[in-house]
Amino acid sequence: MTQQEIITIDALELSNWDRDFLYLLQEGGVTCVHACCGLWENARETISKVGAWHQFFKANSDLVMQVFQGSDILKAKKEGKIGVILGTQNTSALEDDLSLVSVFNQLGVKVMQLTYNNQNLVGSSCYEKIDSGLSRYGKLVVEEMNRVGMVVDLSHVGEQTSLDAIEISNRPVAITHANPDWLYPTKRNKSEKVLQALKENKGVIGVCAYPHLINGKSTTLNEFCEMIMETVDFMGIDHVGIGTDLTMNMSKEFLNWMRMGRWTFEIDYGAGSQEDPEWPEWPEWFKTPADFPNIIRGLQENGMKDEEISKVMGGNWLRFFTNAFTAEEEAQKCEFPI
Amino acid sequence: MTQQEIITIDALELSNWDRDFLYLLQEGGVTCVHACCGLWENARETISKVGAWHQFFKANSDLVMQVFQGSDILKAKKEGKIGVILGTQNTSALEDDLSLVSVFNQLGVKVMQLTYNNQNLVGSSCYEKIDSGLSRYGKLVVEEMNRVGMVVDLSHVGEQTSLDAIEISNRPVAITHANPDWLYPTKRNKSEKVLQALKENKGVIGVCAYPHLINGKSTTLNEFCEMIMETVDFMGIDHVGIGTDLTMNMSKEFLNWMRMGRWTFEIDYGAGSQEDPEWPEWPEWFKTPADFPNIIRGLQENGMKDEEISKVMGGNWLRFFTNAFTAEEEAQKCEFPI
Repeated sequence: MTQQEIITIDALELSNWDRDFLYLLQEGGVTCVHACCGLWENARETISKVGAWHQFFKANSDLVMQVFQGSDILKAKKEGKIGVILGTQNTSALEDDLSLVSVFNQLGVKVMQLTYNNQNLVGSSCYEKIDSGLSRYGKLVVEEMNRVGMVVDLSHVGEQTSLDAIEISNRPVAITHANPDWLYPTKRNKSEKVLQALKENKGVIGVCAYPHLINGKSTTLNEFCEMIMETVDFMGIDHVGIGTDLTMNMSKEFLNWMRMGRWTFEIDYGAGSQEDPEWPEWPEWFKTPADFPNIIRGLQENGMKDEEISKVMGGNWLRFFTNAFTAEEEAQKCEFPI
Repeated sequence: MTQQEIITIDALELSNWDRDFLYLLQEGGVTCVHACCGLWENARETISKVGAWHQFFKANSDLVMQVFQGSDILKAKKEGKIGVILGTQNTSALEDDLSLVSVFNQLGVKVMQLTYNNQNLVGSSCYEKIDSGLSRYGKLVVEEMNRVGMVVDLSHVGEQTSLDAIEISNRPVAITHANPDWLYPTKRNKSEKVLQALKENKGVIGVCAYPHLINGKSTTLNEFCEMIMETVDFMGIDHVGIGTDLTMNMSKEFLNWMRMGRWTFEIDYGAGSQEDPEWPEWPEWFKTPADFPNIIRGLQENGMKDEEISKVMGGNWLRFFTNAFTAEEEAQKCEFPI
């Protein structure tokens, strides 16, 4: 099986995009990336982020295109371009305004993580001491995201808020970038209870190579692929994808913004620690998006069948995004079958 | 005892202020009002609200002045003016930016209620199904409010967030407008547990005449004064004041904003109900601020001593605000004694 025969989708990257980065994605055979365009930003700041992406799309239109619907991913594959799904790792862009869900959906912000690392108007994060679940506003936000076809992402979201969101959502939801916490115990990884609920919801989880969510840079390719196999054993082959959380070309300033936003005067390390305060080093087998073929090779060496590898590398996200990006009314007419 | 001999302070009014309203306050012998200048507003919207108050102060400088510190209340009394303390019934003005606490403090926004009717970045409201307490950001906000001398108000705040705030705060906090819930059971009124914690914190509660928080417009002056006496029995004579929550001259449009902000497409009635969807009617004995002398009379008729009436009508708030508005470092040098 060659890279050309499959569609590779990375369900979350936080990298700083430039033309060279697009070449690396091409080299790695990547067709589509969900790119983070907001962590703590409010509505005004987020629309400027979208505007900056417009400039990037215009300047590099021979290599990249924005994805609004599933068919755009197929178009990107056909034209040999990188398809970019815009999303935010917070609902801060909505502020307190329920009507902004459809506004950001129209701008192609097709994924929103309900919370980043702190409690917000919608729910609570994995780093808060207590998570009271979805707020009154949060329930309305999930319903409205369902209606317009914006993906509910639970990656950094707290346990109870995640369970509430899965219960409230009448459509499959995503965990774009996290791992089972029984394989790598951290607050950011997901409990069996949440993943069982995700499985029943027919959602998809993107296993994540962010060093703090695995065993650091010393994690071997084989260990990473074993985690994928174990996640597939638990979730089923149709419900696991990749979400690397790759953070290439990011500055120390951005690291501080990521960790501290404007909410604290003292540093908060999130998934990191005081002992290891810089951007983490990535494993040898995944330094850039050009390394995606290593994961395919690793899965092959672990005995995964080509058809299964194709699903994990992108087929599952293609199906999920194709269905999820469709407005609810439209979605009831035709679903991309598993 | 005459109205002239005491200082009357209303710890919360939501009214729409004009010159006629100032005359009514004068007629009622009111020296100082904590005026609400924000419910759901963000930072940008709140500074415009402050700007509108600047215009009002300028246009009516013979009758009204802004209060930044306790001595300003005494000055207002001496000059026969109405002193206005600006405050917000939410921390939405801070957005996610801890540094805005000192900014709004400098603008004279000397009181902030930690939450309005919904969960926010800081904590949870009395109307949310579950209250997980102060968030990580919320703890930093309370500490910073303590430092700069901005009052933590818990009136609409949820049970656990209230208890957490009282525990975290190293200064007395306020419940500017609410009643004991064992006298009038509603979500908005306060439990014995919270009031016991407030008492130990040396805080002050402002008993509230908002019809939905008592027995509607049929509540008699005697019943209201009995509630004051019972609250004094529980809290002690130094820890009870008045916070009417008066809502004069407010439009139906503002009622919708108060209830729904931008967070829901369907109406939420808050303390009201579908059966009684309009602004509530107030009791005959408190239709305007000119009716404050009725409360003094009622307390006298209930046998309260003049010295105690003086404390309840404003003396306690004067002491509380004088201490609370002082920056922490300054406050350690001199406290206005009980």
